[in-house]
Parts: sequence; structure tokens; C-alpha cells
Amino acid sequence: MADSTTDQAHLISRRRLLGTAGAAGAAGLVAGSAAGAFGDQAVRDRQAPLTGVGSASVAFHGTHQAGIVQPAQAHGHLAAFDLAPGADRKAAAALLRRWSATAAELMAGQAPKGDDTGIALDAGPASLTVTFGFGHGFFDRTGLADKRPTALDPLPAFTGDALDAKRSDGDLWVQIGADDALVAFHALRVLQKQAAGAARVRWQMNGFNRAPGATERPKTARNLMGQMDGTNNPKPTDANFDERVFVPDGHKGADAWMAGGSYAVVRRIRMLLDSWDNLALERQEKVIGRRKSDGAPLSGGTETTPVDLDKVGPDGALAIAGDAHVRVAAPASNQGAAMLRRAFSYHDGFLDDGAPDAGLLFIAWQADPLKGFVPVQRKLDRGDGLSRFLRHESSGLFAVPGGCAEGEYVGQRLLEG
Amino acid sequence: MADSTTDQAHLISRRRLLGTAGAAGAAGLVAGSAAGAFGDQAVRDRQAPLTGVGSASVAFHGTHQAGIVQPAQAHGHLAAFDLAPGADRKAAAALLRRWSATAAELMAGQAPKGDDTGIALDAGPASLTVTFGFGHGFFDRTGLADKRPTALDPLPAFTGDALDAKRSDGDLWVQIGADDALVAFHALRVLQKQAAGAARVRWQMNGFNRAPGATERPKTARNLMGQMDGTNNPKPTDANFDERVFVPDGHKGADAWMAGGSYAVVRRIRMLLDSWDNLALERQEKVIGRRKSDGAPLSGGTETTPVDLDKVGPDGALAIAGDAHVRVAAPASNQGAAMLRRAFSYHDGFLDDGAPDAGLLFIAWQADPLKGFVPVQRKLDRGDGLSRFLRHESSGLFAVPGGCAEGEYVGQRLLEG
Repeated sequence: MADSTTDQAHLISRRRLLGTAGAAGAAGLVAGSAAGAFGDQAVRDRQAPLTGVGSASVAFHGTHQAGIVQPAQAHGHLAAFDLAPGADRKAAAALLRRWSATAAELMAGQAPKGDDTGIALDAGPASLTVTFGFGHGFFDRTGLADKRPTALDPLPAFTGDALDAKRSDGDLWVQIGADDALVAFHALRVLQKQAAGAARVRWQMNGFNRAPGATERPKTARNLMGQMDGTNNPKPTDANFDERVFVPDGHKGADAWMAGGSYAVVRRIRMLLDSWDNLALERQEKVIGRRKSDGAPLSGGTETTPVDLDKVGPDGALAIAGDAHVRVAAPASNQGAAMLRRAFSYHDGFLDDGAPDAGLLFIAWQADPLKGFVPVQRKLDRGDGLSRFLRHESSGLFAVPGGCAEGEYVGQRLLEG
Repeated sequence: MADSTTDQAHLISRRRLLGTAGAAGAAGLVAGSAAGAFGDQAVRDRQAPLTGVGSASVAFHGTHQAGIVQPAQAHGHLAAFDLAPGADRKAAAALLRRWSATAAELMAGQAPKGDDTGIALDAGPASLTVTFGFGHGFFDRTGLADKRPTALDPLPAFTGDALDAKRSDGDLWVQIGADDALVAFHALRVLQKQAAGAARVRWQMNGFNRAPGATERPKTARNLMGQMDGTNNPKPTDANFDERVFVPDGHKGADAWMAGGSYAVVRRIRMLLDSWDNLALERQEKVIGRRKSDGAPLSGGTETTPVDLDKVGPDGALAIAGDAHVRVAAPASNQGAAMLRRAFSYHDGFLDDGAPDAGLLFIAWQADPLKGFVPVQRKLDRGDGLSRFLRHESSGLFAVPGGCAEGEYVGQRLLEG
């Protein structure tokens, strides 16, 4: 492998840099899937390509928690927990300490200390991230109401909401993502078991995204409407990215413990896919304001061309309709309000009427929900042509503190501050 | 790429052989996942490795249907349909013709003819397979009762069954597998829409397996108990593999149309994971008869060492306990009965009591259920120490005809014979 390609060398040197375990996943490509022409014997040993999928890892410790700026993985679990009756601040602190230590182990590809289910044995960390947040109720139950950020005040009601309280809110929130389903499930299972006695699951949802390597080049994700989703997302290279997404470092006041943290708005948004799919392609594109095939705005150019909201077509009409999703959601329509969306699709089978129970586990990250999700959703709620194809079925708002250093745990500045 | 590695050349030449589209997914490795040490800026552009994951394809046309001998993919959808009232043999034939043509397109990575949802745009076929089967009720509803194989007679009741009729059986069965979640969902959605008017979904389940590349080398799959599962599976290289799995070519009688086909037993098996995880590792291993870490039988050796059912330990006791799963399931305990298991794990959140609604979508393939699933399950039902940690919640038995040639459709020999 001395003559490995530049990209392999890059991968390997990065792995070395990260100090992840030596099991080199990038050592070579083994043949892909199996098939045979008619009459042939099917080729019977599909070997997995030994890529970085399993060996890739994300550091748990850092300024910010992991699972925010990293691209969303192929598998996601969202879970909300309520503190058990009688669980106090001390019990909550012990739980967060346990959870943090375990998340650090799992994200490094190590088995958790103590009994392990073994579900993730053999596999690498597969880009696992575990992210912890606090809901509104957490602060009352732990005697910390004076440290509850005003940013956690309940979201306003939107006319398009059809929220299920049982699948909304929660004292604690855990976001798990990994590029392997068993690695993700393993993490969920371990963390749930560690919560025993201190907290129990309130709701739990599973989501997915495109698998690494499923497209020829990395592409903007598509949602279950077939639409590219996320083209206009703030990019970490944007000058004001940190300002929009993270609570600033020198943050003062009762919620100073949120420095380096972010607020997550979590919405289960069911898509009315039967109605959507019955729209002709041209109508769908008008509702969105972009071409379906390549994501280019209807005002012209390619996917990454800025949307021209004023462009008028040869027929004298706006190229981007007045109620087009990209117009109503555009920062230009919302005093620059922007959030980092990092979603998973979901599909939980079919509803009783035969419609797919499927859509988006929408997760939006911002330094302040009143400058991110809330103004944009208010606009969308009133004027978005897409909203008649969506049902917001559950909602949560969580304070996700900054990351921690080794030996510390997530939320320590709140719980011991 | 003239100096591409042997493995890449292998992959490329195979792709050429298969005649799949030219979008070369194997062109290079791009860096894996992102992370940063404490205080570092997280690396922000995780690029998917351009492996064979997306570009790998399986041929639709062939002696046998695809989705039987190929290793199970990372994502699976199982769906049963019931024929609509009034749908006759002609309507069923038209549906199977439509479905077959679409499955061939999708498996080759092409968009289906007509309106498309676009969900799988950008992605390669990702080893997509689509497999069609007929349930007991299909034959009455289409006036073909005289062609119903006796092998489709209802399975006997087992004492451990707790079957939900609404999630069992069905006139038609579709098995979809792919290594990308959106590719799999897309196929399900397209096929379901094409059924409109002729059949409607009776039940639908989602499953998963390890992602390609998540382990350093291809490994036997683990189930959600953490156990390696499938070590003793018949191998396509076994002398009697075809005989066990496929109905023979020269098959005579009313069900001659099943030549080249196979019978699928489909069971949703919930695992009582809380009880299981409470067992100490040593107890778990005794229940299974294998070591959890590496799958080696308790009678010694490595994972692939044949199980020695007669081995006695230094304490005078059998190394493999009398009720150990590997003993009761072993072909030696069942007059050589064997089936090809090709399962997906499932996880549908939590039940009301907080237990995970998770387990195995067990799919067993055999030439004759009375020589495969039935005798083995009878044995397991009575004497398997593992059975007290399992609940069979649904069951289906489907006749999966042989594959078809280009221009034909699956089931044509039945429907036009």
C-alpha cells in the first residue's frame, strides 16, 4: 500500500491524526455486489468494500457537542426521556456523567465499560455521534428553574400544527447518528439502559439518510418528496456561521452555561406523499421554486446559484412564485434569519388509511430560536405553498450545551455551576 | 485510472460485464468522516467514499429471482398486498407484468417509466433486489386454486406463537432490499403506487443489516441480541444447496410453474431484549451454544468449526447444553433439514411498557417448508432454551416462483400457464 492513492493517504493520515484504532478500513477495495446474466449462476459472495465507513470516527470532546456541524449520518435515533419521579439534580448529574463517558467510548469505537449487549461488536464507530440536550421541564424537576434560558420558552403555536403531546417535548433529549444501523441501535440501547432509575423514554423516533457512497459524488440530500433539501443551509465556512448556530463564548447571565451550545428545534413533519406525488412535476417545482432533477432555482443557473426572487419570466410572472417554498424560507424574506437544518427522513410503515407514515425528522440548530426557527416557521405557516403537503405532528425544543473536555461531562456547568 | 488497483479493475470489469450504467462509482476514495480534538474546529466536510456501494447492481432476469442467494442488504422492506375486490387473474397478471418491468428498471439503476417520485435520483442501484411471491389466498381469488402447491398449506401452530393476523399472510408478497435507504424506499413507493386498483397493502415492515464497510472484513451478521447469526447457513457452494433451496427444474404436476422457485417463510420475531440483556454473558452463551465474541461453538474451535454435539467438558457435562439453540436447530437434530436464512433486524421504537419493539424479520428459504422450516421450528418450539426470549408475532408463507427472462414477468407460467 506504499503506492496508495493520494486520497487513501489523506484518509490514513487523517485517521492517524485522530488517533483512532489501527484497524485500517481503507486498505483496499473488494468487489461490489453480485449478479449474473440470465441463466448464469448468481455470483454468491458479495464482499463489503473496505472503505472508511466503519472506521471513520468523530471526537466526543470539544468546544461544541458532536452531531451538529457534521453531515447527518445514514441512521439516526432521536429519543426524549423524562426524569423519574424523585430523580433530583444529583441523579441527573450522575446520569449525564455516565452518558458522557459512554458516548466518548462508543464514538471512539470502544465497547462501553461493564456489561455490553455486543450488538456493535466487529464494527468500527461508523461516524457515530451522540448529542445531549435539556428540555423545558428539566429545570423545574432539578431545582434549576433560575438557570432556564428564556430561549427555551415554549414555541408559539402555528396554524399548521397537529401536535401529539406524547411525542413532543421531554426533560432530556438524545440524538444519535451513525453510518451503520447496528452501531446506532447499540448506542441507543446502552444509553437507555444506563438511564434506568433516573429517567425513562418518553418518545423515540428512527430516521435515515442516503448511505455514504450511494451517489457518485457527494450530493445534497433528497427528502422523501424527491426534492433536494439543504442547498441553502448555512455553511461552516460562512463568516457568520458560528454566530448563527452557537451561543457565543463570552455569554453572560443565568444561562452562561450555554456558551458554545446551540438550541435544537425538533419536529416530526409528516409528508402527505400521496397528494404530493399526484401533482405534476411542473406543479411540484413551482411549489418549491427549484427544479427537481438538479435543484437549480427556477430563476436560473445551477443548484448553487443564488435564488433571484425578483426575476420575471417571459410571461411577466415571477420566476419564483409568491408562495414558493424557497421564497418564503429565504433569509432575505426573514431579516436574515437562518438555521442549520440537519434532518433525517423517517418511514414507519403505513397509516390505517393506507397513506405512508413517512416524512422528515426536522432538526434545526441555532443560537437563538427567536432568530432562527420561529420567524421562518411563522412565515412558512402563513404563506408557504408547500405547507399544505406537510403535517407537523410533534415538536420539541432543547438546550444543547457546549461540548466538554476529557474528564468532564456534558451539562456539568449547568448541574454543578 | 489506467493504474487503478487490481480490485478496482475487478470491480470495473465486473460492472462492464453486467452492462450497468457508466457512472463509475469506483473512481477513487475520498476522505472519510470528520472530527477534531478538543478545541479544534471540527472538520466540516465529510465526503462519502466513492465505493461500489451505490454502483453495485444485481440482475433482475435469471433462473431464480434475485434477493434469495445474495447477502441481505443494509435496508429491507417487506410488504404483503391483498388483491382488491374484483381483481381477477387478468388484473393480477397485468400487475405482475408492471411490477416485473419496473423491478428490472430499478435494479439496473434506471428511473421507472412514467411519473417518478425522484426519491432515488442521483443514487446508483445500491444492490437493489425486488422479489415477488404468492400467498395461499392468491390462488382462490384468481381462480387458480388447482395450481396452488400443497407446500403452501398453512403452517402448523406452534406453542410459542402469538401471531397477529393483520400482520400475517397476504395474497402477494414483495421483498425489497438495497444498501441505500432512499433507494429501498423509492422502490417500495413505486411498486405500491403501481398496485393501485389491483391490490392494497395488507402489512409492511422495515428492517436493516450492517452497512457494507462497517466491519474491517466481511463478518457473519449480528442480530440485536448481539449474537452472530447465520454461521451454519447453507452455502451456495454446498453440494446440496440448490436442492435444499430451489424447486427442481424438471418439477412436474399442478405446481410445475414453481420450477426454479423457492418457498419463503416470513416471521416477525420480537426479541425480549430486556430479559436477554439481564442474563450474564456466560448464561447467554450457554443458551446459544456459541461464544458471543467470535461465534465459536462451546465445543471448541473457531466460528466455522463444526459444532461437536457429543463433546463433554471436564465437569462431565455436555459442552453444548441439551437445550442450546445450536443443538436443537442443527441439521443433525432434524434429519438434515436445513433452510437458507436471510434476515433483517427491525426496530420500531418502544412498546407501551418501555420494552423495545425490536427483533428479527426472519426469512427462511427452502424448496419445501416441510423439509426446512417446519421440522426445525417444531423442535425449537419444544426444546430451545432461546425460545423463552422470543415472540413470534406474525407469520407468512409465500410461493416465490423462479426468475424470468427478458420480456417475461415473474409468475407468468402460473398466470398464463
